[in-house]
Amino acid sequence: MNAPLDPDFARRCRESFGRQKAMALIGARLTSVEPGRAEIALAYRDDLTQQKGFVHGGILGMIADTACGYAAFSLMPAGCSLVTVEYKMNILAPGRGALVARGEVVKPGRTLTVARAEVYADDGTHVATMQQTLMMLAGKTDHPE
Amino acid sequence: MNAPLDPDFARRCRESFGRQKAMALIGARLTSVEPGRAEIALAYRDDLTQQKGFVHGGILGMIADTACGYAAFSLMPAGCSLVTVEYKMNILAPGRGALVARGEVVKPGRTLTVARAEVYADDGTHVATMQQTLMMLAGKTDHPE
Amino acid sequence: MNAPLDPDFARRCRESFGRQKAMALIGARLTSVEPGRAEIALAYRDDLTQQKGFVHGGILGMIADTACGYAAFSLMPAGCSLVTVEYKMNILAPGRGALVARGEVVKPGRTLTVARAEVYADDGTHVATMQQTLMMLAGKTDHPE
Amino acid sequence: MNAPLDPDFARRCRESFGRQKAMALIGARLTSVEPGRAEIALAYRDDLTQQKGFVHGGILGMIADTACGYAAFSLMPAGCSLVTVEYKMNILAPGRGALVARGEVVKPGRTLTVARAEVYADDGTHVATMQQTLMMLAGKTDHPE
Repeated sequence: MNAPLDPDFARRCRESFGRQKAMALIGARLTSVEPGRAEIALAYRDDLTQQKGFVHGGILGMIADTACGYAAFSLMPAGCSLVTVEYKMNILAPGRGALVARGEVVKPGRTLTVARAEVYADDGTHVATMQQTLMMLAGKTDHPE
Repeated sequence: MNAPLDPDFARRCRESFGRQKAMALIGARLTSVEPGRAEIALAYRDDLTQQKGFVHGGILGMIADTACGYAAFSLMPAGCSLVTVEYKMNILAPGRGALVARGEVVKPGRTLTVARAEVYADDGTHVATMQQTLMMLAGKTDHPE
Repeated sequence: MNAPLDPDFARRCRESFGRQKAMALIGARLTSVEPGRAEIALAYRDDLTQQKGFVHGGILGMIADTACGYAAFSLMPAGCSLVTVEYKMNILAPGRGALVARGEVVKPGRTLTVARAEVYADDGTHVATMQQTLMMLAGKTDHPE
Repeated sequence: MNAPLDPDFARRCRESFGRQKAMALIGARLTSVEPGRAEIALAYRDDLTQQKGFVHGGILGMIADTACGYAAFSLMPAGCSLVTVEYKMNILAPGRGALVARGEVVKPGRTLTVARAEVYADDGTHVATMQQTLMMLAGKTDHPE
């Protein structure tokens, strides 16, 4: 449905993800990126939990945010940067075990893109759902300035 | 404005925060808790950043989420648990330097509480704003089950 | 997927919708209700528009809100009431022509239900997308008190 | 705090509001507009209600959306147009009696502006709170095209 403007989108997304030190901190991996879609996997770790022993809601937000971001970034031209404008997430169930966040573009746009992510646990539980708005910054680098 | 139901709310919030291993992972500290308000401070660290060297949007979400949570938890009776139903956050500026998230209860309720958090950088930049819904689970422990 | 608790759910939803005078004001119709799904149709009218002649974003919100609401209400037991806790909507394109809002339950729950609605124009344009949280009030009437 | 770019902002906002036929339909009035702030008043009417006799949640959204919109539009230059990107609203209490929505700009921007609105009933009840993102379209008319 969504044709990538940059044939080299997958490498560009993987390199960008590789520069996200916060993703390394929590052990998240970009396991798949296709035009308009991206998947982030997160192994369960004790140091990612909140006071009740579930994965912290903010960590759920981190992987859902990032899955939306690379779903959108996959459709962008080379030589641009993408920023998160806002996101809204519902937590549907406590986060237990390994998680995966699947991001998908709902509406690509020249300036703004709307994306969505679903977070699932490895037992199939639907853990969270996010709706997000992103803005492309044309001619801005995706590297530290 | 908001009288706490539990006179020992501050100790209860600090102990709960102390069990949040994800907060220790990112180095966040609960620097203040009053009835209906809580403040989380986060020092800048290179390993909290995204691909452009700013603090990851999901990390902004983690501290804002937690600031809302303890603002709400401060007004709850002893012997209950609180879960995040959903949140929505706008990122207003890139997160640079040390950050503080200030959470405040907008509308306390028996079942649902609505809270808000503002994230500021130490140079005064307004970095993010969050609106959140929380649900009290009466008679549920705030510890791992 | 979702079995209704009340076999008479369709009649209950239609009667409740019939009491929504605001829906009559804008000419909205409940065109379909199934377990976990509802559809609201809205004919284009000049008096529903904003300053540029498109259907007002708040009117898009009205039909999306109501489509989520009856999607959720269809799964509720008889003799309860349902309130909207919050919703978030992205407007994806200007609202032109006749519109339909399709609501769907994402996660049914005893207390809280999460639903989503998509608004489409009759030319197939995806106009808006909403994510919503609803709360069931057991033993409360769905009529004026 | 916010200096208007257009000294004639108030007239421009009032004329734009006057073209919103949906506001006339529900009887909403723009009662105040200052740089970065706008206020919409809504008298109670039976035909604005939902199934329980309260003002419809979507109507609350309409006035909050519009209050945010003119708060933002007051800071824009002449000769531009403004579109709602997205909004998120929590309903805090049933809408009874006359209502007022007070919109305020949280973060003005060249492209995107973030605003907030609070809806109050005339008995002082805090009825709803909205967080919204708007986008300026430079060189686009605010009239029907």
